[in-house]
Order: sequence, then C-alpha cells, then structure tokens
Amino acid sequence: MTANSHAAWNVDAVETLRVGPGFELAAVDADAAPGHPAGKAQGAQDLAAGAELLDEYQERLYAQSRTGSSNASVLLLLQAMDTAGKGGVIRHVVGSVDPQGVMLTAFKKPTSEELSHDFLWRVRGRVPTPGMIGVFDRSHYEDVLIGKVRRLASETEIERRYGAINEFERELHDAGTRIVKVMLHISPDEQRGRLMERLERPDKHWKYSPGDVDERALWPQYMAAYQAVFDRTSTPHAPWHVVPANRKWYARLAVQALLLRALQDINPQWPAAAFDVEHEKRRLSAG
Amino acid sequence: MTANSHAAWNVDAVETLRVGPGFELAAVDADAAPGHPAGKAQGAQDLAAGAELLDEYQERLYAQSRTGSSNASVLLLLQAMDTAGKGGVIRHVVGSVDPQGVMLTAFKKPTSEELSHDFLWRVRGRVPTPGMIGVFDRSHYEDVLIGKVRRLASETEIERRYGAINEFERELHDAGTRIVKVMLHISPDEQRGRLMERLERPDKHWKYSPGDVDERALWPQYMAAYQAVFDRTSTPHAPWHVVPANRKWYARLAVQALLLRALQDINPQWPAAAFDVEHEKRRLSAG
Repeated sequence: MTANSHAAWNVDAVETLRVGPGFELAAVDADAAPGHPAGKAQGAQDLAAGAELLDEYQERLYAQSRTGSSNASVLLLLQAMDTAGKGGVIRHVVGSVDPQGVMLTAFKKPTSEELSHDFLWRVRGRVPTPGMIGVFDRSHYEDVLIGKVRRLASETEIERRYGAINEFERELHDAGTRIVKVMLHISPDEQRGRLMERLERPDKHWKYSPGDVDERALWPQYMAAYQAVFDRTSTPHAPWHVVPANRKWYARLAVQALLLRALQDINPQWPAAAFDVEHEKRRLSAG
Repeated sequence: MTANSHAAWNVDAVETLRVGPGFELAAVDADAAPGHPAGKAQGAQDLAAGAELLDEYQERLYAQSRTGSSNASVLLLLQAMDTAGKGGVIRHVVGSVDPQGVMLTAFKKPTSEELSHDFLWRVRGRVPTPGMIGVFDRSHYEDVLIGKVRRLASETEIERRYGAINEFERELHDAGTRIVKVMLHISPDEQRGRLMERLERPDKHWKYSPGDVDERALWPQYMAAYQAVFDRTSTPHAPWHVVPANRKWYARLAVQALLLRALQDINPQWPAAAFDVEHEKRRLSAG
C-alpha cells in the first residue's frame, strides 16, 4: 500500500509545496495545480481513491495505538485568509475519515480564560492523543499572524512566540506526532469573488461578516506576517506547505496527499493479538 | 423539505421504535426491519438520500446558531451491547455529516478524576453547544447499566441516578437540546457471530477483548438493567428508541431517520443578514 498507487496524478509533486530555505510566498501562483495537469474531473476521481486509502491508514493508526505498541498520531494544522477553503478541506478530506479517529478543533478568538494563560495553553489541551488524527482549524499561528498585523502583542513578544512555537512543535514531534502544517493560498481577486458569492446567496449570508472587508485591506501586511512565519517556523520536524487554493479541487487533493504522505511515513500496522486466539474461539463457542 | 420525501421506506415506522408505557424489551425481534420491507440494497440507496437531507439540515442548524437567534441543538445518545454496531452508525450515519457540525464523545471507563465527581460531571462537559449535533458513544447510562450489573454502586445510589438523569435531561431539553436516545438491539447469537469474525480476521483482533466473553455471560442481567432504564428514563422530553440491529443496514437507516425527525422538529432556518447587503457589495467591489 503506497500513497502513489492510488492516483492518476503525480503525488510526489506535493514535495514541491514544502517551504524550504529561500521560499518566497510572493512567488507562489495561487492558480497553479502542481503535479496535476489532468484537471478537475480527474481530480475528483483521485480524491475518491485517496479517501479509501486514507480510511485504511487511519484505521491502522488507531488500531496500533490500542495495544500501546505505538504512540504515533498526526496533526493537520490549517491556516489561511478567509474563504480560502479550510472548511471545504475539513468537510471533503477530513470528513471522509471515520469521525471516531479524528479530533477536530476550531480555534476562535480567545476567551478571557484563554487569554489569562500563555498563548500555547489552549493548544496543548487539544493535541491529538495516540492513534488520532488531530485537525486544527486555525491554531497558535494566529498569535503571530493577526497578533502581529493587528499589534495585539509587542514585537518582542511576537519574537518570543516564534521560538516557543518551534520548541512546542519539537516536543510534540518527539512524542510521536507527525505535524502537517498547511497554508491554503488564494489571491485577493479570488477572495473578492468568493465573498461576493456569499453576499449574493441568502443561504450564505451567515458566512459573511462586514469585518471581512476590513481584513482584506490588510492583505499585504498579512502576507508579510505569513512570510515571517515561514522564515521562522518551517523546521525539518514541522515544515510548512503552501497549497495553491484558487482551485478548490486541487487544494483538497493536495492536503489529502500530504496527510497520506504523513501516514505512509508512520506506516501503521495491525497489532498482533495479545490473547490466545484459538482458546478464545473455544470459549466463545461454549458461551 | 421533509424527512418523508427522501425515502422509498416508511420513515414514520421509526415512531414504532419509541419506548412507551408497557414496553417490553424481551418482545423486540432483533432481526426485524419495521417499515422497510424492501431490504438491504434499497436500504443503501435510502441511506444515501437521507445523508443529503441530513447534510442540509445540519448546515441550517449550525447557521441558525451563528446569529444567536436560536440555541437549538441535537444530542444523539447511543447505548448497546458490544458489537451491536455503534461504531458503524457513527461511521456511516454521523460520518456523512460535516465534521465541523458534530461534537462526538466516546465515554470510556471513568478516570480517577471523573470518579471523584458526580457521575453526570463528565457528561455535562460534553453536551452539544447551540447549532451542534452532539453524539454520545456510551453515556451516563453506563452508570445504571454496568453500574447495576457489576454492582459498582448500591441499589439506593442506582435509584438516585435514574432521578438525577431525568432531571438533567429535562434541563438539557429546556435549554434547547433535542435528545435522541437509542439502544441498538442485537441477539446473543448475532453477537457470537460478530465476535467470532473478529477472532477469525487478524485485522480485527484489536477489536476483541477476552472480557467480551465474560460480559456475554451476564446477558440476562444486562437486559434486565436495560428494561429498568427504559421503565425509569423514557420520558416525553427524552424518549428511548430500541432499534433492531441484527441487520446493520436497517439499524443505520433507523438512526438516520430518528436524527432527521429531530431536525425536522427543530426546522432550522437560514438566518437573515444582520448587515446591509447592497452596501457590503459596494464596499467589497471597491476594496
């Protein structure tokens, strides 16, 4: 079982999405679909094939943790500008997995209790337990993104946070969690179109907030804050990936491939029985 | 949009699964499929059609809660003997819903911290927030089921708990939560077959525990404890449903219908915009 076997597309292309030394966000084309020249219809087929693979890997990961033989887990962390498609990824990629194996957290504006602790406090409470796929819809990176752009913290404090994040993720990695960090990258024009659609459809009004337009005005500042995040926190044990997301089908396929890659690295195995199988068969037949 | 329109089967038949006065668990045929004479293949089609309906209802429920205009939520509570199919219901019925709208909790053997509080403490912390579909995989009912059968609490304490449960669920109901309580009902023979399958397949060994056979020996005591639960806690605001579950396809369809019925009762609506739509369109076009 390999992550390559399922797809018509070149899954290895997701490697090119990884943020390495010298990475420049400004050079990423949000319209691109690296590794997948075949387009949307084929993309949907590939997503369905990938979902089956993901399903088996997830069950093995979970099973393996039950006997205590492994503490491996996965953490998918999603960051993006509004409308970039985090919700769609969660619905169509994460949603294809057995909900019993998923631990999903949407981090909102911090509560006053959360603010009374260090910024990593609320995150620590939601890291995946062994065998689980944790998903962060937004994360501790908000504290160095909106935190920096809106000056919710001093520059000194923002600097401290980059270091604290790296240390925290190192710890998590050493404890058995494979960390998959993803920024879904859309263009400002694409965002305008998506916000306009929300305004045009009464069943989408609830997803719109006037504040969305205010945030749009700060687009360059947000891109600079993301660039700083990539420069400071894309580490070998927890690298960032920037996924072009103007095409929703591509973004979903790419995040699925990154998840599959993480699970393939863990390579979870069905655990051996910790009991005498034949003896149990006899007991069961008798009772 | 009605829960009846989606299916070839008689969805109203789920009403017959409700536990009312004079209900006798011993009289329920675990092989039955009330309301669905068409069988498994048609059942799969009906489940897919129901999933689409459930999807829309769930999104409306969630949307409605965002504007604070409604505090409605749903709580699906699942109880059953081992192998009865709770996991399959979660995977195939709950799993068809957007994970962002679901709050799933699997209650295991209580921790020492949990034991230091009243038995409802850990449950209170996991009730669905407005707009969410909460799912309890096991629940506070374990405290009057295994609690009674294994004599983990005195008879006086068990008696107290029935009352405390009714009060708690009343409170929850009054706060806007539609409670759907389900027992999946299999026969002892069906359970033997399912446990045997776990023993025969190495990829299922991890799901088997020798303790499962010990629990089987207490089947009559468990059925008596369930009967007591039904007698004492099937209330108008939080009725029990006993779903025949020897046929997995039927159990899934029935639980889906019960969820649809609950959402239909809530009848969630897309909230009206709390802003001037045309004004926002102009701002967005300019920015």
